[in-house]
Amino acid sequence: MKELINIVDKYLDKYLPVSYPEDIFKAMKYTLMLPGKRLRPVMCLETARILGADIKKAIPAACALEMLHVQSLIHDDLPCMDNDDFRRGQPSNHKVFGEANAVLAGDALLTYAPQVIIENSKDLTSEQIVKILYEYTKFAGAYGLIAGQVVDIESEGGKLVKSPEETLDFIHLNKTAVLFRLAVRFGCIIANSDEKTYNEFDTFATKFGLAFQIYDDIMDEISTFEELGKTVGKDKNSGKLTYVSLYGLDTAKEKFHSLIQECHGIIEKYDSEILIGILNKLEKRVEK
Amino acid sequence: MKELINIVDKYLDKYLPVSYPEDIFKAMKYTLMLPGKRLRPVMCLETARILGADIKKAIPAACALEMLHVQSLIHDDLPCMDNDDFRRGQPSNHKVFGEANAVLAGDALLTYAPQVIIENSKDLTSEQIVKILYEYTKFAGAYGLIAGQVVDIESEGGKLVKSPEETLDFIHLNKTAVLFRLAVRFGCIIANSDEKTYNEFDTFATKFGLAFQIYDDIMDEISTFEELGKTVGKDKNSGKLTYVSLYGLDTAKEKFHSLIQECHGIIEKYDSEILIGILNKLEKRVEK
Repeated sequence: MKELINIVDKYLDKYLPVSYPEDIFKAMKYTLMLPGKRLRPVMCLETARILGADIKKAIPAACALEMLHVQSLIHDDLPCMDNDDFRRGQPSNHKVFGEANAVLAGDALLTYAPQVIIENSKDLTSEQIVKILYEYTKFAGAYGLIAGQVVDIESEGGKLVKSPEETLDFIHLNKTAVLFRLAVRFGCIIANSDEKTYNEFDTFATKFGLAFQIYDDIMDEISTFEELGKTVGKDKNSGKLTYVSLYGLDTAKEKFHSLIQECHGIIEKYDSEILIGILNKLEKRVEK
Repeated sequence: MKELINIVDKYLDKYLPVSYPEDIFKAMKYTLMLPGKRLRPVMCLETARILGADIKKAIPAACALEMLHVQSLIHDDLPCMDNDDFRRGQPSNHKVFGEANAVLAGDALLTYAPQVIIENSKDLTSEQIVKILYEYTKFAGAYGLIAGQVVDIESEGGKLVKSPEETLDFIHLNKTAVLFRLAVRFGCIIANSDEKTYNEFDTFATKFGLAFQIYDDIMDEISTFEELGKTVGKDKNSGKLTYVSLYGLDTAKEKFHSLIQECHGIIEKYDSEILIGILNKLEKRVEK
């Protein structure tokens, strides 16, 4: 795990040299290089590896995924969105670089991520690159991440078009699960896996994504700033629709553990120390 | 010209159906569908056509270009950027949909534009699609549009890293010329043109982009709200670095006309009524 995180950190740094105009590259790099668990890129590299691909082939796509993730964090933290002053234990992007640069740094990451894939994937065929970019564009936009964020903001304001349960599922699937789904989809495309494997990993990532978001909702309720690196209790205080607010802490914990078990069931045959390690680590942090 | 504009309008509308969550699609669509000259997509379609390609092949890329352009307008208008309340004669995006949705609508367009290209370019090879997306990602991001916008904002705040002349050139090339360069580059890639032609069109678009920005600077000085559809005299009043503020109105007009002449020189051999028409129309609006 540590080894894969180091690879991701090294290439994120390498792919993004600071050039003129420096302020934008510094703003992009600031949030990107804050120490993180790199869960999404690691999941991408590991999926490619256990399906038989050289992980080197997956490094650009894995790093692109982290760029997309960080883009969404930078924009989510803006005063007009979640208005969060901290991220990964440090002042959030707009607190350091100002709002204009934070908006632009997010925009720049959103388009730099696919650029990194195209520029550094000489080992992939054009067909593979187009497939990867297609998944990227779909899931990063109004049919994925953005849709999740819009519904999340609206639900906070009390505007619900669907039932609270459906709305929450939509938010979790689109705001959180899509990035894990992209991770395994990229891995599968790079490894040229068959459709069955693709769907299997996609189901794994969807369930993992939901579990991860429930975990996040639970942590917002029971954790501390030091543990999370971001403001705690915020969702609760803002009346945000979360798994905990909708179903209660106990049901949230049950659902979390049941999803993690399903994830184990899907990937146990691949004997992936890393994916199993991720599940175990998360599991341990939520008391039954 | 009118015919090509109609094609662009029709496909922009068609490519972007409103689905759940409606607010984001409505916000994306609002600024996108305001009547505009569609200069960039028209230039893309016409370049493809005069170089021998079926313009149908170029429609997705042309529309993507307008989406990118509109994305940059929506974000530029935000309170934390240029803080502009009007665009194309109507309230700007954040005035109608709020800041959060305007940020997200811009994000969504930035990633929907390449999605439209991938989804609708069955007539292009994967190699052509990758080439188009590579140009798109480079020019839309920190090595293009965003770089131009960052330097523009910083220059307004009096922060200049390079000389005023170099800074202004950088802003104009990156904020304005890149979109026209993308237009002709897309056209050339779709028509499989040779390198010489590619470079010729790229030079044309670069010069046209500079002329267009100088034209814009002149109009900000001498035009009215009714003519421009946006706030007038804003650049001047904010002390923004413009061609007019740096070189004076007369020199700006001279430079504009000389660039337009150079553009005529490059494309006259193609006998394109539409490109020549665009040059003539622009030329007529600036008194010598």
